[in-house]
Amino acid sequence: MENFNYYNPVQVLFGKGQIAKIGKLIPEDNKIMLTYGGGSIKRNGVREQVMQALQGRRVVEFGGIEPNPRYETLMKAVETTRQEKIDFLLAVGGGSVIDGTKFIAAAARFRGGDPWEILSREARVDDALPLAAVLTLPATGTEMNSNSVITRESTREKLAFSSRHVFPRFSVLDPETTYSLPRRQVANGVIDAFVHVMEQYYTPGGDPVQDRLAEGILRTLVELGPALVNDPPEYHSRATFTWTATLALNGLIACGVPQDWSTHHIGHELTALRGLDHGVTLAIVLPGVMQATAESRRRKLLQYAGRVWNIDPARPDAGALAIARTEAFFQELGVATRLSDYSIGAETIDLIMERFRERGYAQLGGIDDVNTGNAREILLSRL
Amino acid sequence: MENFNYYNPVQVLFGKGQIAKIGKLIPEDNKIMLTYGGGSIKRNGVREQVMQALQGRRVVEFGGIEPNPRYETLMKAVETTRQEKIDFLLAVGGGSVIDGTKFIAAAARFRGGDPWEILSREARVDDALPLAAVLTLPATGTEMNSNSVITRESTREKLAFSSRHVFPRFSVLDPETTYSLPRRQVANGVIDAFVHVMEQYYTPGGDPVQDRLAEGILRTLVELGPALVNDPPEYHSRATFTWTATLALNGLIACGVPQDWSTHHIGHELTALRGLDHGVTLAIVLPGVMQATAESRRRKLLQYAGRVWNIDPARPDAGALAIARTEAFFQELGVATRLSDYSIGAETIDLIMERFRERGYAQLGGIDDVNTGNAREILLSRL
Repeated sequence: MENFNYYNPVQVLFGKGQIAKIGKLIPEDNKIMLTYGGGSIKRNGVREQVMQALQGRRVVEFGGIEPNPRYETLMKAVETTRQEKIDFLLAVGGGSVIDGTKFIAAAARFRGGDPWEILSREARVDDALPLAAVLTLPATGTEMNSNSVITRESTREKLAFSSRHVFPRFSVLDPETTYSLPRRQVANGVIDAFVHVMEQYYTPGGDPVQDRLAEGILRTLVELGPALVNDPPEYHSRATFTWTATLALNGLIACGVPQDWSTHHIGHELTALRGLDHGVTLAIVLPGVMQATAESRRRKLLQYAGRVWNIDPARPDAGALAIARTEAFFQELGVATRLSDYSIGAETIDLIMERFRERGYAQLGGIDDVNTGNAREILLSRL
Repeated sequence: MENFNYYNPVQVLFGKGQIAKIGKLIPEDNKIMLTYGGGSIKRNGVREQVMQALQGRRVVEFGGIEPNPRYETLMKAVETTRQEKIDFLLAVGGGSVIDGTKFIAAAARFRGGDPWEILSREARVDDALPLAAVLTLPATGTEMNSNSVITRESTREKLAFSSRHVFPRFSVLDPETTYSLPRRQVANGVIDAFVHVMEQYYTPGGDPVQDRLAEGILRTLVELGPALVNDPPEYHSRATFTWTATLALNGLIACGVPQDWSTHHIGHELTALRGLDHGVTLAIVLPGVMQATAESRRRKLLQYAGRVWNIDPARPDAGALAIARTEAFFQELGVATRLSDYSIGAETIDLIMERFRERGYAQLGGIDDVNTGNAREILLSRL
């Protein structure tokens, strides 16, 4: 096991009826800005629950945070926090709303110049407005980590930052808030969580207990995924899914093991350039990354085949079969896994490679065997 | 999944050389009290590493905290914190030293009367001295939770308390500090961690992903245990063991599932009355609890048989076999699992039952099927 430093102070309130408790967790005298997205929280009753829990409190609303939250929109929210003298941000929504709110929190107290540099130059975040979250879409894990991914529309860039100052003070995970999600968003959420785990597990390294935790999460998603997407919502499976997506990226399974974020890295370009759903990009890219690394990560690929898919690792085709099963799993969730399914061709691949070159990238996700040398080949294999 | 509230702000610094970083994590102006046990940290060089990391700082030492830390000793330490105007407690040792230091921290700032009531009446802990830990014995998980178990010698009682004020600010887990542990303590640690997981997993309830995490930790201990105890210390397996013991009781696998702490509960009485090692008491009691609940928890017993021991759950003797394998595993670690192996007979069982009656207990660990009605039978089956 490699050395690590683990710290995650997010308080998780999980289950039915937990939204009612949020009033007590935000300091009495704080002026709160409630942030949300396209307004689904108004239709599904979540906003009403939140407002009821905050009755008698000073609350300002900022809606309209986009999927793949835009820098331009978030900077307007930063302006509002200043005009309204906001003390506390409460994000109500999915990964985009929470990620966007993390950026608002950091940018509102950023004194180091242009807040864009938090994303473009990893400018240091020394402070942030306190924030919390009410999660409505299990997928990204942002409700229990310190990461955020933001898109700049004007330059079509999708970039990430991380700071311990943007850990949510608390996050409410009520599985019932997911009942109104469209099928497509549930499928994307399952894929996002699955790929998060793979990026912390499917590497040349690992550790016995960390591998077991990762495999446990993967198996749960494999066993639960199709019913989550195809059946009417039901509390227990939605609860397991909600917590599983959080576990997939709350820092725990990353402890002491190598990581390879190349699937996300490449996927972000497909979203930034062609507007594909985040989950869809991962379903397209992961099988290509697995194929390209099947030799360099052979031991782990066979372990994955055996433990996640019950494929006999002694079979000569065990590795290939495990990759095929992974892709078939995404398809079973209703997600097409080829670039051509989305009318994306070689010219987009050229554009991505050009961007990697411009930014001076060599390896793409943390491990040498996925790099700008084989990224084109990976993407071509996914046409 | 049941509702839950998870919060764990302990920063974990894991790996070789991490002790050197502790100086930076304790506020510069704080006067530190270093707490430890019987002095093994002087012989194995850990104290020297700690003192080097604290060079130039004001440090007072308080040694002599016993295995099963005694209230009487700890109250002397509380006195020292007052006389010396201590700001920060640094526990260097195993579970007893860290548990004891948590009690010192809480008692030093307890304003509600006699600090014994923190243990005897669950008196509320509203404040505590800040504390941190350097762990030298993986076993109890106390380095990453808010629990503490204390023994009062004068009345032979062993009682627990829990408060979010006694979470360590940070804990250093350096697997190399475990190299000098006697074989017996390693075996006890493996058993302690194993039983912690069982008490959060082997119940009539559960959740798909939480079960997978628990099973992953159990399998890791099963695969690693015998070599940990029998072979010379080696970094990777000690590292996995260290982290596994922490995962077993840092609150994570308890999220959303029922728990049954009856094995610990009964075991504590054996330690308090007869001085048995904590791990030994668990190895004795757990097979009895499993046997007594084999029918009421049949579904989970068969799942455990299949997933942890690769026993075909369709076998008519699958449950019995899983219990036998569990007991054999403890024996393989060099721990005898019968009361008679320790010259303990029916009179001690009578004494334990008498104590449960005096305290007015009904169920013993959180689930109805282990209670004062069948505790005698459980213990008699372990003679």
